[in-house]
Amino acid sequence: MTAPRARTRSGRRPGNQDTRSRILAVARKLFAQNGFDKTSVRAVALSAGVDAALVHHYFGTKRQLFLDSVDIPVDPTQVIAPVLDIPTDEVGRHLAEAVFSVWESPHRPAVVAAFRSAMAGNEPTLIRTFLVEVVFRDLGPRVDEPPGTGILRMQLVASQMVGILVTRYILEFEPLASLPIEDLVDVIAPTLQRYLTGPVPG
Amino acid sequence: MTAPRARTRSGRRPGNQDTRSRILAVARKLFAQNGFDKTSVRAVALSAGVDAALVHHYFGTKRQLFLDSVDIPVDPTQVIAPVLDIPTDEVGRHLAEAVFSVWESPHRPAVVAAFRSAMAGNEPTLIRTFLVEVVFRDLGPRVDEPPGTGILRMQLVASQMVGILVTRYILEFEPLASLPIEDLVDVIAPTLQRYLTGPVPG
Repeated sequence: MTAPRARTRSGRRPGNQDTRSRILAVARKLFAQNGFDKTSVRAVALSAGVDAALVHHYFGTKRQLFLDSVDIPVDPTQVIAPVLDIPTDEVGRHLAEAVFSVWESPHRPAVVAAFRSAMAGNEPTLIRTFLVEVVFRDLGPRVDEPPGTGILRMQLVASQMVGILVTRYILEFEPLASLPIEDLVDVIAPTLQRYLTGPVPG
Repeated sequence: MTAPRARTRSGRRPGNQDTRSRILAVARKLFAQNGFDKTSVRAVALSAGVDAALVHHYFGTKRQLFLDSVDIPVDPTQVIAPVLDIPTDEVGRHLAEAVFSVWESPHRPAVVAAFRSAMAGNEPTLIRTFLVEVVFRDLGPRVDEPPGTGILRMQLVASQMVGILVTRYILEFEPLASLPIEDLVDVIAPTLQRYLTGPVPG
């Protein structure tokens, strides 16, 4: 009896890993160079020397290819999107809870690593592209009241959440780092609420 | 005619620079290893092979030696301290203005560099030591109402300000990065105000 050959997380045979890795490496390079919009699945396929259909077979959509190349374990847009259908005066709290449901999970190290990598680079990074071209653009229009304020609202929310990421998980300031998550949500939610629905310039 | 010998910013002759640099290097190492409290001027002098009086001659107080070794151009405690004597319901706005008076000045690159260096390290850094052992401890007691909440209040303020530093100066999100500073103060000040004087856990 021989053990079955190991399978990757996606359930595909390891024999395909070389091609898959090559596609990912090319995608990472092109997305970083040209951003999300200006990088096509076709261009990635061409540069990796494979058929575009194979890229779709491995990764599904261009968005999923991008998420895999950014190495973000969870799509923030999917985490946040349902929150924005919540009654307006509750949205700050639900948004905080949604983000912490990822950050307080086993995904935290990946999130922190992605953030650190964004801080180390001097050029626009994949994370930046991801937030600007994907997250803000997806979610900004949902909080665009009065019209034209949506993107800034999302960025103000990002500023507070990023600050918690830095102070709680990286610098580990006490007592902030040990604050029970319900208490942290209580104190952060009104800030997000005001950024999302309160007065902002522009 | 010969040009006068160049002088350092501090006006001292370059001949002293070797000793001064050596003291700084030792200080940086000891402060990073042992923190602010547990590092004495005497220990720095001993390790640098000079007399403690010489350290005081070059750097003044231990606090100033620390600031010089952290390479922070402005002492945040001095920037913030006067703000906290302001009428309580105005303190958020004045605090935001005080911090931005440094960050929107030619000191910005030094602040950003210090922050990036803190993000890159995996161990407690000088910046962390500086905030925890100097800034929070100096200013926490001034906003310690009800008693025991002061340090957390300062850390929540730090979380919002750090988040602005990241999103405005490093990731350069637009429109946030180009927002006139008065508008940014308008939108951030109520957040700081609530963290400083509003309800917090504990």
